[in-house]
This record gives sequence, C-alpha cells and structure tokens, in this order.
Amino acid sequence: MTAPEAPHLVVTGDGLGRLTGDGLVELLDLPYRDVAELLRAGHGLDPAATAPVRHTVPLDSLTGALRPPLASTRAVWGVGLNYHCKARITGRPLPTAPLLFLKSASAGSGPDATVALPESISRQADYEGEVALVIGTPMHHTPTDRAWAHVAAVTAANDLTARDVMATSGNPTLGKSFPGFGALGASVLGLGAVADRAAIPLLTTVNGEPRQQASTADLIFPVPDLLAWISRYVLLEPGDVVLTGTPAGTGQDRGCFLADGDLVEVSVGGVLPLRTRFCAESSARPPAGHPRPPRTESLMP
Amino acid sequence: MTAPEAPHLVVTGDGLGRLTGDGLVELLDLPYRDVAELLRAGHGLDPAATAPVRHTVPLDSLTGALRPPLASTRAVWGVGLNYHCKARITGRPLPTAPLLFLKSASAGSGPDATVALPESISRQADYEGEVALVIGTPMHHTPTDRAWAHVAAVTAANDLTARDVMATSGNPTLGKSFPGFGALGASVLGLGAVADRAAIPLLTTVNGEPRQQASTADLIFPVPDLLAWISRYVLLEPGDVVLTGTPAGTGQDRGCFLADGDLVEVSVGGVLPLRTRFCAESSARPPAGHPRPPRTESLMP
Repeated sequence: MTAPEAPHLVVTGDGLGRLTGDGLVELLDLPYRDVAELLRAGHGLDPAATAPVRHTVPLDSLTGALRPPLASTRAVWGVGLNYHCKARITGRPLPTAPLLFLKSASAGSGPDATVALPESISRQADYEGEVALVIGTPMHHTPTDRAWAHVAAVTAANDLTARDVMATSGNPTLGKSFPGFGALGASVLGLGAVADRAAIPLLTTVNGEPRQQASTADLIFPVPDLLAWISRYVLLEPGDVVLTGTPAGTGQDRGCFLADGDLVEVSVGGVLPLRTRFCAESSARPPAGHPRPPRTESLMP
Repeated sequence: MTAPEAPHLVVTGDGLGRLTGDGLVELLDLPYRDVAELLRAGHGLDPAATAPVRHTVPLDSLTGALRPPLASTRAVWGVGLNYHCKARITGRPLPTAPLLFLKSASAGSGPDATVALPESISRQADYEGEVALVIGTPMHHTPTDRAWAHVAAVTAANDLTARDVMATSGNPTLGKSFPGFGALGASVLGLGAVADRAAIPLLTTVNGEPRQQASTADLIFPVPDLLAWISRYVLLEPGDVVLTGTPAGTGQDRGCFLADGDLVEVSVGGVLPLRTRFCAESSARPPAGHPRPPRTESLMP
C-alpha cells in the first residue's frame, strides 16, 4: 500500500473539498468543518486524500464560494524580522533568537474577505504577505531535523498589522489581532505537494502591483530552526499555524498604508491566491446577530 | 418565567456537571465537552442551569475526578501590573493603559494537574493567582457600562510565568505558555452567583501558607474598563478567558521560585479551589501517544 498523495484542500459551504485536475471533489463523508478540525482528529490529511469521490464540481463555480480553511485554528504564531532582505532595508541587526508573538484566534479571516480598517484607532494598517505552516502532529522539544515531519501543509497568510498600535503598545499581539487581521488561505496544500520546501516562493500584490517577492530560502531562521525553537517553549498542536515572517516591501517600507477599496493578494507556491479587500470602518457591517453597540470612549485622558 | 439560577459547573469524565447542595448533577443530556464549548453554542450557561437531573453523585466522590473546565478555550488574555498593591511593592509607575498579552491555548491545565517545571530553560517558574472572567457573548467596541453583561462566569487562574524567560524575550507570551502554565478551574461559577462582582476575593497559598490575598476592588483597571479596552482592539468570543492580573505576593516578590513538589492553591470567591502540583521536568511523563524526542539543542551559540 502506497502513502496517499498529498491533498490540496479548500472549504466551501458544503464542507471540506479536494482540488483535482477535474475540479473540486466535495468530501461529503468527512465530518470536519475545516482543515484544523480534520488535523485535530489525529490522522493528518490522509482522510481527505482517501475519502471517496461522490460529487465533483467545476473549478469555475468556486468564485466567491470559498470559506476560511482554518477557521477553528487555536494558535497562530508569528515571527518578527525573519527575512534577510527585510533586515537589510530596515538596517536593524539580525535577531539572535526568533521574535515570537501570538495573534488572537478571533482575528481569523479567509478567502475573499472584506476587512474593516480600524480607523478609529489606527491610521497605519499594513499588509504582510507570508508563507504559513500548518502543524499536523504535536510538537514539543522537537529537534531541528525532525521539525518538517510535524508539518502537514502550507498556506498563504496576510499577517495584517496596525503599525502605530504595535509601536505604542510595544507588543505585536494587539496591533495584529483586529477582526480579520489573520487572513489565511485560499487553499491548504499538503506538504508532499510542495515543490521545494527549502525555497517556497511568495508574491504579494496590492491592487495588482507586485510589492513583495521572495522565497523562504531567504529566511533568517529557516523553517526547521523556527519550529524547533518554538517547541522548546510551547506545545504546538495539530491545526496550529506558524507564520514564517514577511519579506521587504510592506507598506511601512514604502511609507504607504492600506486604504478603503484596496485589494491585497498573497500567492504562495501552489496554494490558491489569498485575496483580501479592505473597507472603511464606517462602511463595515457588524457580523450577523451581533449588533454594533455605541463606540467605547477611550479609557485614557 | 423567571431566569434560571446561575449554575456552578465542573467537568468530569462524564462531561459537564452542576454542583448543588446535594452533590454533583451530571448533565448527561448536554453534548458539550467543557464550559467553553457550551458557551460557543450561543445560549450562555442557561442550558446547564435548566438541564434535567438524571443522576446525582455525592461531592466526596469527586476527589481527583475533576477535568479542565475550559479545555477548549481559544483565547486566554492576561494583563500585567493591574493591582495597586503590586504596583506599590514594585515601585513601578501605574500603567496608563492595560499591559495585555495572550497565553497559548495549548498551555491550559485544570484541577489537580501536575505541571513540569521547564528547568532546562528557566530557573524562575512562578505562580500568579488571579480572578479569571469567562466571556459569554461576543464583545467588540463594547462600552464600559455594558461590559459585565458579556461575562458569563468567573473561575480561578494560576497565570504561571517563567520570569527569566519573560525578561530575556521581552514578551510575556513565551514565558507564560509552557505546557500546563495556563491553569484554570477547579469550577466555573455563573456570574449571578458571585456575591460582589466589584470585590471578588482572591487567596493564593503555597504548600498551605498564604502568599497572595486581595480582592478585585484593588484593580488598577477594574473589570469593566479592562474588558472595554480589550474589545476596542479584538473580538472577544464566547468561551474566551480574560485574566485580571495578580496581586502582590508572588515568588518574584519574595525572591523564591517554584520547586519540585510544591503545591499551589488559588481560591476565588465561591469557586472550588484550583490546586496545581509541580514536579521536576525530568520526572514528568510525556502525554500519552507523544513519545519524548531527544532534547533540541539551542539554536544560538
């Protein structure tokens, strides 16, 4: 018996789906709402690779139909200053250890989301295109040469950041956890289908113009070192996500931040591009069943 | 129809249970594995208050039977320096805004847990007894005078912290996210059963000796201000937990850190005491099905 092929997964309103040359295979036999829930069941991506084909829909019917593939992820770890190209343009010295932070799980968004710019608090919302790793099996005190074996898949991330909030609070978490600021997707690509895991390509465009172009070959702490380092401190669990850092070319690097109507697209290797649209806070609609209360006044004078 | 009484909940191997004067009512009709999952279903604690009584077990049979009541919580927010008594002994100025951080969800532990001291990385593991708030309904841009309405319950927390790791990394998250370092329990007390929500009493003992004694009346940012402040930035979701800070009397304040065999107990209002035992890392058993690999060498020279 050969190992099942690494699947390429999405989530639609009908649940998990597997992309093939013929279209989208709806995995109607799997009871998992997203890829993180599938991985928490403890069998990696294999159930999605081997589930029977009951129904295939054409790819062109997917426009606007994709849902967040990692909505139930519990931990999203990020790392500051992890590309040599970024360190060069900032002039900052190379870090001697990964600069780690957590994003709030409640900040997650998925394919084709519209994210409100938190203009009442920040005038410097910025994109950060990143390669994201999806953990497949528990990691704690994992040696570097065993780290890749715990990675189930890769996806694209936009690690959205309110630069001014981050500077004021001195902690990345607050400035990176506004609703929608943890964009992941559009698909989740099994690691076995990644062409060269030591050099995963990344491209970020803003309104169609290329702004970030790099590969993980330029990482200061390469994937195995980054994962091994995190696992010295914390338990990484199946479905957790580790962002690998952003290369040069963010809005901060160009003195230009996100505005109403901007469209950012992050492309990672063979993953479906992750598109996020931005809108003014005033035009954002509150989530269904969650009427917006009057705005809180600042606590501070 | 009158509103159901605020329930006092625990989790056992048989699922959710409600404490009454007669014993523990097992809520066998409820399909939720813990209190966070119950709250995510969107009906607050009411289903646990009104579920039919099918089986009652005596309280004295619960010794050692309690499980983590908030195992599936996705976000645990904490706040640094939030008691006046703590600010006085440290000599630090009062913060002008809450000093917020996230603990990793994977760090959670529950009643009567044994937590390994991460001695290979830290020699300064420390307790922080705290009053913890359990969010019942979504909060975003919530005004101060509406904040309590979103709190479903309170519980006790031990916000365990490796002081040396926190000092070195400059970020509270890493030093507070070792496995077991997010202790919550032993029970979850519905807010309606809290005697005086403006002055919830807290007592921490170490090996039976009182070390921290305070009430939330001494908070620098009281509960409504703290919650409103967080909700300006992030969406708080049902089942999320907000720790309110620790008063004076930690090990750091006394120059004495946790050691193999120590027993810490945190008591909060009418909540069942939260007991945590500590052991040397070398004597800790890895989780079932998760053999311990060789220790990772430091990445750094």
